[in-house]
Amino acid sequence: MAEIDSLSEFLAVAVDAAKRAGEVIRKGFYQTKHVEHKGEVDLVTETDKACEDLIFNHLKKHFPTHKLIGEETTAACGVTELTDEPTWIVDPLDGTTNFVHGFPFVCVSVGLTIKKVPTVGVVYNPIIDELFTGVIGKGAFLNGNPIKVSSQNVLVKSLLATEAGTKRDKLTLDSTTNRLNSFLYKVRSLRMSGSCALNLCGIACGRLDIFYELGFGGPWDVAAGAVIVKEAGGLVFDPSGKDFDITSQRVAASNPQLKDAFIEALLQSE
Amino acid sequence: MAEIDSLSEFLAVAVDAAKRAGEVIRKGFYQTKHVEHKGEVDLVTETDKACEDLIFNHLKKHFPTHKLIGEETTAACGVTELTDEPTWIVDPLDGTTNFVHGFPFVCVSVGLTIKKVPTVGVVYNPIIDELFTGVIGKGAFLNGNPIKVSSQNVLVKSLLATEAGTKRDKLTLDSTTNRLNSFLYKVRSLRMSGSCALNLCGIACGRLDIFYELGFGGPWDVAAGAVIVKEAGGLVFDPSGKDFDITSQRVAASNPQLKDAFIEALLQSE
Repeated sequence: MAEIDSLSEFLAVAVDAAKRAGEVIRKGFYQTKHVEHKGEVDLVTETDKACEDLIFNHLKKHFPTHKLIGEETTAACGVTELTDEPTWIVDPLDGTTNFVHGFPFVCVSVGLTIKKVPTVGVVYNPIIDELFTGVIGKGAFLNGNPIKVSSQNVLVKSLLATEAGTKRDKLTLDSTTNRLNSFLYKVRSLRMSGSCALNLCGIACGRLDIFYELGFGGPWDVAAGAVIVKEAGGLVFDPSGKDFDITSQRVAASNPQLKDAFIEALLQSE
Repeated sequence: MAEIDSLSEFLAVAVDAAKRAGEVIRKGFYQTKHVEHKGEVDLVTETDKACEDLIFNHLKKHFPTHKLIGEETTAACGVTELTDEPTWIVDPLDGTTNFVHGFPFVCVSVGLTIKKVPTVGVVYNPIIDELFTGVIGKGAFLNGNPIKVSSQNVLVKSLLATEAGTKRDKLTLDSTTNRLNSFLYKVRSLRMSGSCALNLCGIACGRLDIFYELGFGGPWDVAAGAVIVKEAGGLVFDPSGKDFDITSQRVAASNPQLKDAFIEALLQSE
């Protein structure tokens, strides 16, 4: 019972932190069109940093013994090793390209691992005001309403999401587009919306049937989304079909019925 | 003065029609997860048909002499020739795949051509409640606020939107993914969100910098969006760089500064 109470408290504090950071993002989002002289990069860096500070301070105040891993801190100080300790893994602003351009798919992602297992996840899109939450063993929710993955079991009727990534060397780009070519024969259509965390939430609420991404930023892109997908009845796995490794920068997700056909299609596309 | 009054009336009636149809779409959108036994295709067809009937009846009541072209009617009765008469060109539900899957990029598109020139445009996304409007010579608006295209003038910093289309023959798919491969060296990133009309509106409000689509459904996908882009200061053209032809099923759009570099990149990608 004490543990359940703790999980509820972890969730409440994470939601509070995500909503406060979302407020900062929302203000910046509507300013991006007016900062051309100052430079877009400054606004992104400032917003990212302000949100990470805000979230970290909020988490430290409530849980002073917990570890913290954040995209901004890691960029500045190098990778922090993930241990068995309760560890908050935070992306203060996922979808930075969308943020710069004013494309409304941006979010805060706040995840908690305990013994390296993703346990609490909060993903908040402050522009269209969608709050996705998940707590291990307690289900997944969108704005407080229970969500579940799609019931699609036919690959050719599935909606696939992926991303073009940021690498622009020939080997990576050829692999990326060859994979798309191979998949377009096998699925209904393709969406690229620019946020790994929101793609995972799209799987969780059944908007998307299958999702993969290779070479994204780090564990902060997936720590929260992984809990939300699992609690919505979905699976998170490595694109090879092996177990998901939160530190690997490779992720795939789907409902249980599509997983085998999806992995087969992914392997054929290599 | 009489003409301006007419345009205002055309816009008001089109907005009214789009909002009423949007109500029907919104209801269907949240039902899609519960119609598996009845069949998704039925729900799409029913919603599409109900919205087109609703919009056509509303337009006929107010403008009994105007011509009407709609996706559903055309599918049933063959192509209606576009004449110089005032003609309403309507897509009652753009983004049908998104509608089926519950992905929140769906819209109603209502455009009016006079002497074959797109003159009034209304695009309404009822899920995230975004109403884009444009009237020739009177500007473009999102939920009543003026919008303009992005000021980006560097291709490699641009956000590109396109779609995978519905054709799955090898020639088309290879062209599609070769074009993506070529573009990914030249732009910042790529978005595919599944609605031609909303992509045009994304150009109009500066969320997207460049957009092309080849082989979409028909003039109903672009009639409204074309006015909105132009009134937001953007350009709508054929991907070859020639003049836009509303009946050609080929469209490209950008701000004026990016057009030449964008066309050059498109031609190089063929």
